[in-house]
Amino acid sequence: MIQVPALPLIVKILPDEIEIEADTGENLLEVIHRAGVYLEAECGGQGTCETCIAAIIEGSCTKSGITADDGLILTCQAEISDNITIKVPAASRIIPSEKKTPEIIHHIELIKPSKFSPLASAVTIKSGDLRFNDSLSDWEKIIRFLPAVDDIECGIDILRRLPAIIRKEEDITVVFTQTLSGKRIIDISPGRRDIYGIACDVGTTTVAVKIINLTTGDSLGYASSYNGQIECGADVISRIIYSQKPGRLEELQNRIIRTINRLISELLQKENISPQDVFAAVFAGNTTMTHLLLGIDPKYIRIAPYTPAVKTVPMLSAKELGLMINPNAVIHCSPAVGSYVGGDITAGLLCLSGIDAHKEAVLFIDIGTNGELVLMGDDWMIGCACSAGPAFEGVGIKCGMRAAEGAVEGVKLLDRGKEVKLQVIGGGNPLRICGSGLIELISELFQYGIIQRDGKFHKSDDNARIQKRGNENIYVLVEADESGSGREIFISEHDIDNIIRAKAAIFSACSLLLKNVGLNFKDIEKIYAAGGFGQHLDFRNAVTIGLFPDIDLEKFQYLGNTSLKGAELALLYSEYREKLAQTAKAMTYIDLSSESGYMDEYTAALFLPHTDENLFPNYNNRF
Amino acid sequence: MIQVPALPLIVKILPDEIEIEADTGENLLEVIHRAGVYLEAECGGQGTCETCIAAIIEGSCTKSGITADDGLILTCQAEISDNITIKVPAASRIIPSEKKTPEIIHHIELIKPSKFSPLASAVTIKSGDLRFNDSLSDWEKIIRFLPAVDDIECGIDILRRLPAIIRKEEDITVVFTQTLSGKRIIDISPGRRDIYGIACDVGTTTVAVKIINLTTGDSLGYASSYNGQIECGADVISRIIYSQKPGRLEELQNRIIRTINRLISELLQKENISPQDVFAAVFAGNTTMTHLLLGIDPKYIRIAPYTPAVKTVPMLSAKELGLMINPNAVIHCSPAVGSYVGGDITAGLLCLSGIDAHKEAVLFIDIGTNGELVLMGDDWMIGCACSAGPAFEGVGIKCGMRAAEGAVEGVKLLDRGKEVKLQVIGGGNPLRICGSGLIELISELFQYGIIQRDGKFHKSDDNARIQKRGNENIYVLVEADESGSGREIFISEHDIDNIIRAKAAIFSACSLLLKNVGLNFKDIEKIYAAGGFGQHLDFRNAVTIGLFPDIDLEKFQYLGNTSLKGAELALLYSEYREKLAQTAKAMTYIDLSSESGYMDEYTAALFLPHTDENLFPNYNNRF
Repeated sequence: MIQVPALPLIVKILPDEIEIEADTGENLLEVIHRAGVYLEAECGGQGTCETCIAAIIEGSCTKSGITADDGLILTCQAEISDNITIKVPAASRIIPSEKKTPEIIHHIELIKPSKFSPLASAVTIKSGDLRFNDSLSDWEKIIRFLPAVDDIECGIDILRRLPAIIRKEEDITVVFTQTLSGKRIIDISPGRRDIYGIACDVGTTTVAVKIINLTTGDSLGYASSYNGQIECGADVISRIIYSQKPGRLEELQNRIIRTINRLISELLQKENISPQDVFAAVFAGNTTMTHLLLGIDPKYIRIAPYTPAVKTVPMLSAKELGLMINPNAVIHCSPAVGSYVGGDITAGLLCLSGIDAHKEAVLFIDIGTNGELVLMGDDWMIGCACSAGPAFEGVGIKCGMRAAEGAVEGVKLLDRGKEVKLQVIGGGNPLRICGSGLIELISELFQYGIIQRDGKFHKSDDNARIQKRGNENIYVLVEADESGSGREIFISEHDIDNIIRAKAAIFSACSLLLKNVGLNFKDIEKIYAAGGFGQHLDFRNAVTIGLFPDIDLEKFQYLGNTSLKGAELALLYSEYREKLAQTAKAMTYIDLSSESGYMDEYTAALFLPHTDENLFPNYNNRF
Repeated sequence: MIQVPALPLIVKILPDEIEIEADTGENLLEVIHRAGVYLEAECGGQGTCETCIAAIIEGSCTKSGITADDGLILTCQAEISDNITIKVPAASRIIPSEKKTPEIIHHIELIKPSKFSPLASAVTIKSGDLRFNDSLSDWEKIIRFLPAVDDIECGIDILRRLPAIIRKEEDITVVFTQTLSGKRIIDISPGRRDIYGIACDVGTTTVAVKIINLTTGDSLGYASSYNGQIECGADVISRIIYSQKPGRLEELQNRIIRTINRLISELLQKENISPQDVFAAVFAGNTTMTHLLLGIDPKYIRIAPYTPAVKTVPMLSAKELGLMINPNAVIHCSPAVGSYVGGDITAGLLCLSGIDAHKEAVLFIDIGTNGELVLMGDDWMIGCACSAGPAFEGVGIKCGMRAAEGAVEGVKLLDRGKEVKLQVIGGGNPLRICGSGLIELISELFQYGIIQRDGKFHKSDDNARIQKRGNENIYVLVEADESGSGREIFISEHDIDNIIRAKAAIFSACSLLLKNVGLNFKDIEKIYAAGGFGQHLDFRNAVTIGLFPDIDLEKFQYLGNTSLKGAELALLYSEYREKLAQTAKAMTYIDLSSESGYMDEYTAALFLPHTDENLFPNYNNRF
């Protein structure tokens, strides 16, 4: 029998009208991604998160885990066996990039550093000033215009371009970076120009990028997206495990670099800036994310004694990472304190530089996929981490999403929970619910007695919003025809359980950290909360569900994405870069997992607001 | 008519028995080089030097400039038109590399620097010492073992290899280089090992390389060869002109890198050292050679106001140059004083570090293809350059060669020039004549009255060695059947004229330099001569022909290849690297071509020993 080579199959994606070739047996989700259409796929293709749903319009495929009666399929479970046309609903897609993602930053007034001193600086030399001093070489003529230093480095490419550039009879822009002890020239080019830098928060779940004019210090744009590594695991431990098979470390590095390059390129195009004019980037991420960003094996972060390969990363260049900016651009990574308190925290703490230095017991809590807590006094600083999971970023929650356009960020229940009033980011139709919305929704459901202290629904016949789905109850927040995606928005008991476990991890870490230094909740003078919850995190709700301790609400302040803000500060001021290094050295790191009592604390916190209601005297009254 | 694709022609090279394909019209010399057989071709393929001769054994070729009655062809002029078999005689070949080339170094006793401080250093860390300090990252554990510094850099490749290496339970070797203000780690690898470095003199005509153990400071081997750029022009000006056509700068850079890589690879193989263990290299070359080594356009070196692109080259890495050693190896180029006093001179002057510092008027003369002269006193230093041409390196002399095995380095005439007594490097049959041999031969011919003051032969019937060739006279030193190549060794009036012009350039530069500071020959306390003349440069002969001034012979000292020795010193001692930078800054550079009187001085020196015989009272007596 003659073997006929198989013709490729065609996958057509609607409403994009994209056609792409695929082979029999290929995974449908991978083919869709190959076509440049990005689905959430939060569980990493495990078939559990149901966020990669698409509808079959024509044709069929095998192993297509049907999820509901409407015939939708989980693309991550589907194998291609025939030509197929699918429709990918807006709700499954990673927020389309053309939509504006608001940057959420509330920050306390910062002490203005004395000197604007960005990671990359430019000096413009007037063409006339280069005509003299004939005994000097081209290189010596140029470096004469830099602030005095002993040691100036540069790459051979710059030396090679120098003779032609210097004789163009144009002004020359010299870009350099200041190392601790010398300077490195990273570009010499004809003409006067502004130069740019990137601040980037590399979150386990969400990546945020800002572009900043390094000549003026002005912030030019902000963009965020899910980390392209999400498919490879929801938290740092899953990513580390994923990275251990051959080729996987490179894959993870490629994925995060692709995500960052996409965001950068979007911002640069919008501002009409050439990637060649971007000369510096500061990255703030947790220790695992920083390892994966650099392509360094993170294996030993999760094996006792939990030793990262590197905490303070030496200065690198963009070409070493594959970033699509100037290849000589200087890369600074915010330094880590330990395996689980990373550069996102040292960067975040920069945002507290303006607080009263004499305060004792200030608590900083950054809630991302990991929760990190830092308790600090006048001359001490102690930090720990806990695994909250990505629930507050909307991942692992059926109708969850990060705080971006279309997200429900605020919920008020009316008429004993029969009616709802929503606040939606961007003001349009709601798509899904982000962290602050989830916190408020659960707080409201709990206060109205619609859910019990264990997070399960009370049986109720008179509220049509409470419905049975499979073997669990859900609360329908938005009907399908009123949502922006055409699918209903709801919260399930499974979702609520996820949030309870996340808040229990944070609360018990907070509790144990205080015990460790012999303090009580009442001793806390201020709590600064950071994370991508959404613009309007309401601390009353957060205390109601037991995420934060029940102390005077005046003591709370929400700072937004401090990791990103800290990266920006480090990009702009050498004083802050030095402070990063000092913070990383000064902080004492506590490993909660090795503390006796942590599991007990955690288990006790798995109730709304807590097993011990006496801990929450103020907000334990129900409607 | 149907076009039949041309079959490639076959060129067979004897006695190597190499067959190589070639196309119709290809240049035969290029095909021979492509086959890995290197001919001298000193004139760069102009058809003038007659050093690329081969014999046709079978077949023929077009445009083959027949040189003599014996039917030999100039391969550089020959175009391939048919299958051909040629025989390349030993005399045409660049000295085969398996032959030992002696390193020629006479140097004065150097002041021993207080501290051995090579450009790359290794620290070995015991495996047991890495098991403690669990709160440190892998990187912090390693850098703790380096001498204290603020600023440590490294490439991402090293960070990536770190976690696996540190857990091998083996000792670890960390290689680093000291910058002026910090350290750069250039390698981390398991096991204990010695590390190596390269010192290289990049001459216009001759390239010399030494390999040195940087752990012990021991010198391990020496090799030299002609610069692969010779085909592209005999002196720096021709090379600069050659470099100006598209692709030519890259070609010249490739050629010198190939020459250096070949010499390095030869030495490493002999010593059984891996190229990966070579972590540093110091290059000393004139300003043009340094530009071409780095691939930097040298164009403006020959255009007023004669500005090099760079005099003090920043630290570079081997991968930027394409050197076949460890890609992270650190590259240091000896700094230049000006466009025509280069890093070979600043390096060479390191060899004078041991001289009595209170001496006034010490003259250093380095005779390469360019002659460079430095006159110095207690606290001043003045330098200039002149274009001597490559005659003293054997190039442009029909039977000339560099000082390598087979070279006639000493000549005594007996029986009024009818008999000769030769001294041959390596002791075997003579091949050609090197610099010191040429000087002695001309000195002897002049003293015996066989040549006149203008370098032309006296008519003489009773000496069979004086013969007519074409329209000039020659003196036959070795008959064809007594030479190592089977071809006669002779000197022609044209050769003598070349040497006279070379020595006139040096002498007039010397004369003008002294005038410039108001000194006379008699004021010179010491003359140090450098260059690749040959082991036994006899100053009496050099003064006899008027190369050097007629002063007390006791005042002369020959130092050999000071550029190479200086590169070695800079490779081994930071004190010498600092001194290089100081020397480059301290020296006053004089442009002879702009000095009035230089041409008069030069013209006056175009006689043996000089037009003004009173300048040479001591050695003006003939036999």
